[in-house]
Amino acid sequence: MKKDLGTKPFIMPMPVLIIGTYNEDGSADAMNAAWGTLCDMNSVALYLSEGHKTVANIRARKAFTVAIADEANMIPADYVGLVSAHTENKKIEKSGFTVAKSNRVDAPVIEELPLTLECELDYIDEKSGCVYGKILNAIADEKVLDESGNVDLNKLNPISYDPASRSYFTMGKKVGKAFGAGAVLK
Amino acid sequence: MKKDLGTKPFIMPMPVLIIGTYNEDGSADAMNAAWGTLCDMNSVALYLSEGHKTVANIRARKAFTVAIADEANMIPADYVGLVSAHTENKKIEKSGFTVAKSNRVDAPVIEELPLTLECELDYIDEKSGCVYGKILNAIADEKVLDESGNVDLNKLNPISYDPASRSYFTMGKKVGKAFGAGAVLK
Repeated sequence: MKKDLGTKPFIMPMPVLIIGTYNEDGSADAMNAAWGTLCDMNSVALYLSEGHKTVANIRARKAFTVAIADEANMIPADYVGLVSAHTENKKIEKSGFTVAKSNRVDAPVIEELPLTLECELDYIDEKSGCVYGKILNAIADEKVLDESGNVDLNKLNPISYDPASRSYFTMGKKVGKAFGAGAVLK
Repeated sequence: MKKDLGTKPFIMPMPVLIIGTYNEDGSADAMNAAWGTLCDMNSVALYLSEGHKTVANIRARKAFTVAIADEANMIPADYVGLVSAHTENKKIEKSGFTVAKSNRVDAPVIEELPLTLECELDYIDEKSGCVYGKILNAIADEKVLDESGNVDLNKLNPISYDPASRSYFTMGKKVGKAFGAGAVLK
């Protein structure tokens, strides 16, 4: 039996992305964003409300990092989504995150997060507000890599955002190879 | 120890979205897309390569559905990502999915999938190729709802796409309330 729920923002699951930028005074900022995806194999598309300090920072510095929030860092990852750098100038210190400058872009890398994309601003689409960034490099902690040097999702242990319960979930197990599982039907 | 992996499309996790449209002859089509997100609480943003039959269908009919692929339907969900309606005119029949016409938009609803967004085309951004759609309604199977009538992510049992292993994963357990877990740090 099917039921109509009305207009609901039910894309599931969504990532928990921590966007790192520098403020005008050189201090680091970070925010928590679920509304992000890829638009090609080298580029991210982020839908961030214009009011965020992060957007002003990206406009000024033309760079940002995108880190994947993992279960071990759920509380600081959530904190940076709860508190604004507009009103809390010690946001990063209070979050518990420590930051280092990216070697490639004018943006901070959060040391505790195990996977980070270093991005330069491509452009901001003024109609949708979408921030398009080119991925220059992915930095991974060795502990999340498999024997071939590729990221192992269960070692990474990312959290995801569920828009129905407004909660974070962990990942389960691998259940199939994409673009292959269906081959049995051909 | 951190390691540079180069340019990698590592947004994790991603959803597995099944986009339903009608072909010009009135037959149904569906494709599998991971590069989709929200751009506001009522709208989806999908990055689909222009060559897909789905994009031509959306341009013609100004409507589509977005269904969440679940574990029970992983094989047909994968099949519609593997095979093109450009070359297989019995794609839907061969996938095993059955379809009904949406009551609200000129697009098919896949009956087996437990959660579907009925969307009308807002516009296609010609620079990025992004398809923007307004969510008119979410249709959910009662079996994926909790006692309050909200979608329960573990009952829905969506799969997600892992771009590192190109595999599908199930969800794990709820580990925290978003925009609340961090409150302990304030």
